[in-house]
Amino acid sequence: MKTIHLMAAAACVLVLAVWTQSGVHAQQTAAGADGPRFTAANELMRPTDFREWIFVTSGLGMTYNEDVAGAPARVPNFTNVYVNPSSYRSFMKTGQWPEKTMFILEIRASQSEGSINKGGNFQAGLSAIEASVKDSARYPGKWAYFNFGRGTELKDRVVALPTTQNCYACHSANAAVDNTFVQFYPTLLEVAREKGTLRH
Amino acid sequence: MKTIHLMAAAACVLVLAVWTQSGVHAQQTAAGADGPRFTAANELMRPTDFREWIFVTSGLGMTYNEDVAGAPARVPNFTNVYVNPSSYRSFMKTGQWPEKTMFILEIRASQSEGSINKGGNFQAGLSAIEASVKDSARYPGKWAYFNFGRGTELKDRVVALPTTQNCYACHSANAAVDNTFVQFYPTLLEVAREKGTLRH
Repeated sequence: MKTIHLMAAAACVLVLAVWTQSGVHAQQTAAGADGPRFTAANELMRPTDFREWIFVTSGLGMTYNEDVAGAPARVPNFTNVYVNPSSYRSFMKTGQWPEKTMFILEIRASQSEGSINKGGNFQAGLSAIEASVKDSARYPGKWAYFNFGRGTELKDRVVALPTTQNCYACHSANAAVDNTFVQFYPTLLEVAREKGTLRH
Repeated sequence: MKTIHLMAAAACVLVLAVWTQSGVHAQQTAAGADGPRFTAANELMRPTDFREWIFVTSGLGMTYNEDVAGAPARVPNFTNVYVNPSSYRSFMKTGQWPEKTMFILEIRASQSEGSINKGGNFQAGLSAIEASVKDSARYPGKWAYFNFGRGTELKDRVVALPTTQNCYACHSANAAVDNTFVQFYPTLLEVAREKGTLRH
């Protein structure tokens, strides 16, 4: 009888342990474990699962520069924007980005004629992957920008681009919510309007 | 002592019950609980969380019709395609779609000038939401197509479109993998090539 009692107690402890572990895991995910990961040398690791993150928009041939806009037509690229899921859920509640938010910009070639398509544009080969991260403890300017390189020559880890690069000044001056171009992300734009967090 | 023993046993049963429930839930998710949900009247419910599903591509102004391609320019729409997560994971392993796969087509207006953007196109207001579902038990043709309607007048639930609609014949004749236009979804296209599941 004592043996059975002990076995039951042991089984109970085991079940409790498994259950508690699952709870801890869920908490970690909610707190941003799906965001940026860095090496000891301050390099941002390229996430391999970003296509399972939350898609916020795609643009085609977007141009922030008057001169380029007036230049002869070139084949435009698609720009797909993804954000880590826990930060997306936080934004949907608050209209703001928590620390450890990470965006991926996936740049893809476009193609017009192919299969049964006769007009307009669909997505083709990978051109480049870029990223931005919000981490006030790590970056004096709060947000940092990263370039994982082109197509099939992607780097696994990179340090932040120098703060003299255009992306820093442009995001800081023109972004609708906290350095992010929410003005181009229609679902998030509605949320920011509701929560009153739009800068422009 | 007997009371303590009984309380311990009761606690253990409770923990086991919670644990088993989580297990059952996880199994359901893996088996497609994130896919289509139907009413008793065979209407497909519009998922409210599809923007947290997996994004597979976005096109701009895609046109399958020669006549339309030659027609005067109109403002093109973006077409964002999402698939339920468990079916995506299954496809990444096999190059095939399991039963209860569901796609959402989110059609959005495009805009060219706005904020700092001077050229190209970014996404604007919601135009319409459409869907497709694979369910051999429910539909003789295996796949069915749905239209939740336009922009702010979306329906919560709809029956499948009649099989005389173009979408049925066009997907059946031209889709690269099992009625789905994987030829336009670059990440999935690579997987289908690897797994040898491309029809064209």
